[in-house]
Amino acid sequence: MYQLFIANKNYSSWSLRPWLLLKQLNIPFVEQLQQFQVDNYATFRQFSPTAKVPCLHDGKTVVWESLAIIEYLAERHTGVWPTDATARNYARCAASEMHAGFSTLRNVCTMNCGVRAQLTNPPPALAEELARLDELWQQGLTQFGGPFLAGAAFSAVDAFFAPVAFRVQSYQLALTEPSLTYVQQLLALPAMQDWYQAALAESWREPSHEAEIGLYSKVIADHRQPVASSKND
Amino acid sequence: MYQLFIANKNYSSWSLRPWLLLKQLNIPFVEQLQQFQVDNYATFRQFSPTAKVPCLHDGKTVVWESLAIIEYLAERHTGVWPTDATARNYARCAASEMHAGFSTLRNVCTMNCGVRAQLTNPPPALAEELARLDELWQQGLTQFGGPFLAGAAFSAVDAFFAPVAFRVQSYQLALTEPSLTYVQQLLALPAMQDWYQAALAESWREPSHEAEIGLYSKVIADHRQPVASSKND
Repeated sequence: MYQLFIANKNYSSWSLRPWLLLKQLNIPFVEQLQQFQVDNYATFRQFSPTAKVPCLHDGKTVVWESLAIIEYLAERHTGVWPTDATARNYARCAASEMHAGFSTLRNVCTMNCGVRAQLTNPPPALAEELARLDELWQQGLTQFGGPFLAGAAFSAVDAFFAPVAFRVQSYQLALTEPSLTYVQQLLALPAMQDWYQAALAESWREPSHEAEIGLYSKVIADHRQPVASSKND
Repeated sequence: MYQLFIANKNYSSWSLRPWLLLKQLNIPFVEQLQQFQVDNYATFRQFSPTAKVPCLHDGKTVVWESLAIIEYLAERHTGVWPTDATARNYARCAASEMHAGFSTLRNVCTMNCGVRAQLTNPPPALAEELARLDELWQQGLTQFGGPFLAGAAFSAVDAFFAPVAFRVQSYQLALTEPSLTYVQQLLALPAMQDWYQAALAESWREPSHEAEIGLYSKVIADHRQPVASSKND
């Protein structure tokens, strides 16, 4: 049985991607959640060579990078990528663009599922990246007929953009109507709802992730479980 | 016939990766080199949806991300990834780690093939990344027997680290002996020599790339063709 090492569901956008794909494809796995700490290195190195999540263990085989996890699964299960070669090429290009790109979106609208925030001073590059996101999504939705990015079925490219759906929800990001419809569809997936409820139920806070949200925005609501207080405080 | 859009050989580490892989696997392609400009957007958007290089055209199909280019080629040609599943998993993990990681190495030791520079004030993260690079390479060289990272044959993972070989040469980076041997082997490949000679022959300079090299180091030699002077100056 696969073991998937992830971190806090409220914060970890990278963890969400393979987790959601496994759930959507009904591939059994054991979830191993490790809370973020001020310094994760020693703890996370015990299961991941880069000390980062996600990390997939398949027996003794360690698969430690998001895109490599996807390709590892694609060699062993159907449905990871679209069967149509043109759709599959689009899906891989778009997932890879998300993997190393959209840095302003990722830094300015940090994933924090349970929070709602108002952007106060977004850098100009954010609007450029959202325009590119719209363009990229429209390309897929139009060319392959939707309702998912590469056609009728959920595939790895949708998993790669799932954290963006939470960002749109948290920061009320301005996208075109078809893109917002796509976001709503992602948010409505039962597995996304499960992830979201688990994120809300987390009573832990990690200071550096909490600080990030204040850099470009003001928190206007927080739907998370209050912070756990120790009885020995 | 494939068309591969790339930029200046002296600077473009991303361009080098698929170019070298295609050369090493004897896959025919037409090279389309576009010089970097102060603003590439309008020119590069004519052939690439992200206005970035590399971008592969296969007839009407556009493949615009490095890792997606590799997987596109892997579906159509043998030798892109190792045939052994364990080696292939390592190769994909390592290539993906290079794709979105080693940011300090990439920013501090910017690729500038023809230049030799002395690091003056490298940030502490550089040493940590070089230690990880050593560890990652040793894992592959030891586990799969060398002389390439994932075994006896050059594969896409070696192409992904080829720009690092030029960085080691330019900045005299401190790595362990087996890693330096591996670097020398990459640099000695005929296709790498061809790229290097073409980089040296470029008489164009792009100001932002030239400025990067002065941020953390001092140039001690420049083997490039002098800058072309216009007769109308």
